[in-house]
Amino acid sequence: MPKSPPRHVVILAGGSGTRFWPVGRTSRPKQMLALDGDDPRPLLRATYERVKPLCDRKGPFVVAAKRLGAEIRKLIPEMPADRLLLEPVPRNTGPAVALAAHAVACLGGDAPLAVVPSDHHASPDATYRDVLAAMIDRAGESHRLQTLGLVPTFPATGYGYLELGARRAKSPSGAIHAVRRYVEKPALAVAKRYVKGRRHLWNLGTFAFRPSVFLDAFRRHMPEAASALAPLFATKAFRAKLGPAFDACPSQSVDYGVMEKARDIEVLVADFDWDDLGSWDAVARHARSDPRGNSLRGTDVALDATNCLVRTDDGTAVALIGVDDLLVVRTKDALLIARKGRGEDVRRIYDALKLAGRLDLLT
Amino acid sequence: MPKSPPRHVVILAGGSGTRFWPVGRTSRPKQMLALDGDDPRPLLRATYERVKPLCDRKGPFVVAAKRLGAEIRKLIPEMPADRLLLEPVPRNTGPAVALAAHAVACLGGDAPLAVVPSDHHASPDATYRDVLAAMIDRAGESHRLQTLGLVPTFPATGYGYLELGARRAKSPSGAIHAVRRYVEKPALAVAKRYVKGRRHLWNLGTFAFRPSVFLDAFRRHMPEAASALAPLFATKAFRAKLGPAFDACPSQSVDYGVMEKARDIEVLVADFDWDDLGSWDAVARHARSDPRGNSLRGTDVALDATNCLVRTDDGTAVALIGVDDLLVVRTKDALLIARKGRGEDVRRIYDALKLAGRLDLLT
Repeated sequence: MPKSPPRHVVILAGGSGTRFWPVGRTSRPKQMLALDGDDPRPLLRATYERVKPLCDRKGPFVVAAKRLGAEIRKLIPEMPADRLLLEPVPRNTGPAVALAAHAVACLGGDAPLAVVPSDHHASPDATYRDVLAAMIDRAGESHRLQTLGLVPTFPATGYGYLELGARRAKSPSGAIHAVRRYVEKPALAVAKRYVKGRRHLWNLGTFAFRPSVFLDAFRRHMPEAASALAPLFATKAFRAKLGPAFDACPSQSVDYGVMEKARDIEVLVADFDWDDLGSWDAVARHARSDPRGNSLRGTDVALDATNCLVRTDDGTAVALIGVDDLLVVRTKDALLIARKGRGEDVRRIYDALKLAGRLDLLT
Repeated sequence: MPKSPPRHVVILAGGSGTRFWPVGRTSRPKQMLALDGDDPRPLLRATYERVKPLCDRKGPFVVAAKRLGAEIRKLIPEMPADRLLLEPVPRNTGPAVALAAHAVACLGGDAPLAVVPSDHHASPDATYRDVLAAMIDRAGESHRLQTLGLVPTFPATGYGYLELGARRAKSPSGAIHAVRRYVEKPALAVAKRYVKGRRHLWNLGTFAFRPSVFLDAFRRHMPEAASALAPLFATKAFRAKLGPAFDACPSQSVDYGVMEKARDIEVLVADFDWDDLGSWDAVARHARSDPRGNSLRGTDVALDATNCLVRTDDGTAVALIGVDDLLVVRTKDALLIARKGRGEDVRRIYDALKLAGRLDLLT
């Protein structure tokens, strides 16, 4: 067997914290928070450690907003400076992935890379790494865009789906199929059919490709953005040109802008424990709980309480009496008490506070 | 009409804060907290201001634990030093009332006094003052122990009751009857009969008497305590003798020790808005609420929430989503979330924390 090219992984660390208020703030977005069960590590740190064994000795790349640079360097002190790619202004994931693809291209050899979210739950770590390795290797062999699909375990209406096309190959981590089409978040009845039909997968927003393959697709499907970023693509000293290029670049996600328009995309059909940790409800699902379903910390006391998630970030004591199914999140300046299942509405609290001018509670 | 003797009022400011955790602490018992609806004044301060117009220019007496002395002086800076009676060790209300009776006796003239709790809701203020004035005046005329009974408005099982005897006199604030007997906290069926029968009143733990009349009864019914306190009773310079006298004195309430044993007690049948503010549930009943039944403060946000009481003592923001009937109390080191109706169980949280050695959360 020929020696594989080096594998690279790019972690997209954009994203906001609006659904994780009051812990999540503009200065502490979701990926900077410890939201994965009882793992004390912020999601980005956990993701970094999860994928690092796949990479060369300099480790994964991280793409993030410039304003988070100092925080991220503190969180991952071992990361070499040239692996941190800072977006001067937010332009969604399309330009971010293009920037990452170019940074990898600059290393020479058109070595394939995986692009992964920084704020999901994925386990076991080794299984997840094997999946990424299989995607990267397939991207290297096939010169095609690769995406990751997960066998759905319930009829989720909050995720996008991928419809399977013909089987193309097998990998140690699952079959590789053509993608027939992308499906937006479906209605429940439709999602139920998908789960039964076994022809649809959850779209995990995780990709792999050779830089040249992605940048070709980017130029074709996001021509305006590609034109704005052209000065970057022309040089290895692209960091100096980030400001004006991003300023001029339109905002679009890599999903809408590239993946859903490109032809001949392949999907690896994977199966591991995954959650997008989209709200406090998801955090509650992954948190260790006592026999009454309560996720408490050492100083907390529960009396006739069941199925409550309690999070404090300051070691204070919480006492529950006769309450059920609550999400309780306390910070030094705020407190959230939501009924379980209402985690999505935390965004509305965020918006209400913004409207009320309480930026002190949001930043 | 002969000129009435001066009226004195003694405020009993003992009591603990266990049912008002986490705001209530051993160092901040109930009477030091603002628990009466939206009144920003601690209960003791509100009581002081409520009864002051009845008193001579030096105002009411306050009996309290010695350890609270500094706090009380800060709370009521206008109170002359000789109106503050500090118990060196807690001995319940029997010895406290005897001490107060002696202090009033020392002023000369055997002028009658009222003894009132420091931690109740009573309104309107003027009505309450009229009731106390009527009790004091009757105590002065009749040379009998007076107690205060309130026409019950619901079959409370948490209060003691007084059974009415023969009518003795009338006063501007209600009829004065003999007390036939005291009834401990009754079962619900019994309490319902009491409300219907109109022969039973809530016992408010509020008394009036001439010092000589009380001290006679005290010596008769609490002879051991009276003997321990005898050195006090022998001198106007009683403050110097408080330590050893209280040390030697047994602990007993004035209700059990004196009032329930004494004969020929009279009760004023009163009718005003009253609550013993026994728990956070009572606080919720008296707090102003919005049309959805929520008692919130300025920075709080409620989304599909009803009938929730929110109290924070630090100006932090609370957000509620989809929750009903909660008592939410936040301090800088703790948080209580209880279902409404479970306020009595806060004491169990207090006990659990004590057992766990978390004195930092209780003091």
